[in-house]
Amino acid sequence: MKGEFEFIEELKRSFGAPGGVLGIGDDCAVIPVGGDDMLVSTDMMMEGTHFIMDRISPYQLGWKSAASSFSDIAAMGGAPVGAFLALSIPSGLRDSWTDGFMGGFGDVSREYGFPLLGGDTTASPDRVSVCVTVLGKAPHGQCKRRDAARPGDLVCVTGTLGDSAAGLDVVLNGRDLTEAARALVDRHYLPRPRIREGIALAGCGGVHAMMDISDGIGSDLRRIMEASGVGFSIDTGRIPMSGELASYCRACGSDPYDFAVGGGEDYELLFTVAPGIEAPVAHTVIGRTVEGNSIVWNGSDKDFVGFDHFKGR
Amino acid sequence: MKGEFEFIEELKRSFGAPGGVLGIGDDCAVIPVGGDDMLVSTDMMMEGTHFIMDRISPYQLGWKSAASSFSDIAAMGGAPVGAFLALSIPSGLRDSWTDGFMGGFGDVSREYGFPLLGGDTTASPDRVSVCVTVLGKAPHGQCKRRDAARPGDLVCVTGTLGDSAAGLDVVLNGRDLTEAARALVDRHYLPRPRIREGIALAGCGGVHAMMDISDGIGSDLRRIMEASGVGFSIDTGRIPMSGELASYCRACGSDPYDFAVGGGEDYELLFTVAPGIEAPVAHTVIGRTVEGNSIVWNGSDKDFVGFDHFKGR
Repeated sequence: MKGEFEFIEELKRSFGAPGGVLGIGDDCAVIPVGGDDMLVSTDMMMEGTHFIMDRISPYQLGWKSAASSFSDIAAMGGAPVGAFLALSIPSGLRDSWTDGFMGGFGDVSREYGFPLLGGDTTASPDRVSVCVTVLGKAPHGQCKRRDAARPGDLVCVTGTLGDSAAGLDVVLNGRDLTEAARALVDRHYLPRPRIREGIALAGCGGVHAMMDISDGIGSDLRRIMEASGVGFSIDTGRIPMSGELASYCRACGSDPYDFAVGGGEDYELLFTVAPGIEAPVAHTVIGRTVEGNSIVWNGSDKDFVGFDHFKGR
Repeated sequence: MKGEFEFIEELKRSFGAPGGVLGIGDDCAVIPVGGDDMLVSTDMMMEGTHFIMDRISPYQLGWKSAASSFSDIAAMGGAPVGAFLALSIPSGLRDSWTDGFMGGFGDVSREYGFPLLGGDTTASPDRVSVCVTVLGKAPHGQCKRRDAARPGDLVCVTGTLGDSAAGLDVVLNGRDLTEAARALVDRHYLPRPRIREGIALAGCGGVHAMMDISDGIGSDLRRIMEASGVGFSIDTGRIPMSGELASYCRACGSDPYDFAVGGGEDYELLFTVAPGIEAPVAHTVIGRTVEGNSIVWNGSDKDFVGFDHFKGR
């Protein structure tokens, strides 16, 4: 069976977007309408693949399915317009489950300004399936894409990395819910999309490429590399990590870099900015873009992430 | 468990749309952007609820999932902008299935001018789940809603009704695939959204309310009735039916009205127009809007559809 990336590449080839429209391949599609650009993204979460019912509360699932989608709008610097929810649920599921789900969905929607504008509710024979479509907007030509990094840019991230993956580790391994562990679990289940920061960065001309960190910085740098045709030199020592992550890793003897470099779902922003330009949001510089098409970690051309470091190959 | 309508009513109450935006409750949400209105709709189809894998070919499923969504744009008179597809498929499914699905999706998308602009492909533990989001646009204030019918309007439909439901009957009962039966099956699996007609009707000021016929004209008239606060007087003898439906019903001794009045998924347009105005597309007048909040069938206030007529209650 084709992999997801192969399938997407095929679709990109067979479904060209019309002139002026950015179609398949970035965090959102970008569609010029009037003097604005509409940003649109859709994401599906399937029970048994993306979540297990007895490991996530309905409130957390509602929050996370909305927040992770909003993050796609943040990733390009869009302002919120609205959300659409398609929900397929087994008839045996209690109303309290649906109320919990909509509670989480509603809380994050209101907090970040994405009103629920429509959707579809249907019966499912067994599993829950959730599809969230989000709309954002930006002044025409202003949103940030993955393909705009230039050699010599500084590579920056917002917030701290690894908390979400460590939170999942807490859950999967049934670790003690210390204060630090609890904070990490919240980062995993109740992520906070960087909408405000994305809008500020989109308004800054010196910011070139941008995306959100959903698969882990190792994979996500690669996306910018492939789209922009630049390489990266990253100093892992500068990757920002939270006190909670440090404390959790000390207590259980884990390597925080496993979470911070290899772990996904942080929903922080990854962006490149021209040297000499001060990005208008709190951020950490973790490296530079360079000529070429490889990622150099701490001066070595050995692949730090995903392969050598974590799987020993 | 709450029914779908109850759930949607709850959502409407708890998620108010911002000023100027039409949110939950019509065929699409309508969002003013620049000088235009963006139309957005999302629909989910779940294996085992909406389709059974050995009864529908992947090509037909791809076509139908796209076409039925495009029909929501036609329903309000929008012009095509693009489509987004979220597809969750079991890993055991062969590439030929996905290729067939995308073939049908692609053919109808190209024919009606909805480029695939994005989406999400994910693994599913077992069942196929399809979520299609469609975007259309119309000049600001021009698209047609369900709540705009006025007493004294003529009630009109495009095309013929009942073919799709009869096509399903052919499949479910394993009827002989005569030429007529085959045409009905195609109407069921390969519906043709009335995009061109919808745009023409949206441009006609005398057209008041409009929607597409997805659940059957009995149910769908009720939606306009509730949204507009008008009643209907319908002459069932004027409901347009195809020669294929007549021929099929003669051959198997069925009542064509069962399909034409009670059956869904025709994806024709249902609209009301001020008397004296000639609607700019081929159509049939089937009755009038009246004061009140009931549907009168052939001069009787007995409920013709859905209850008395079909289920004997």
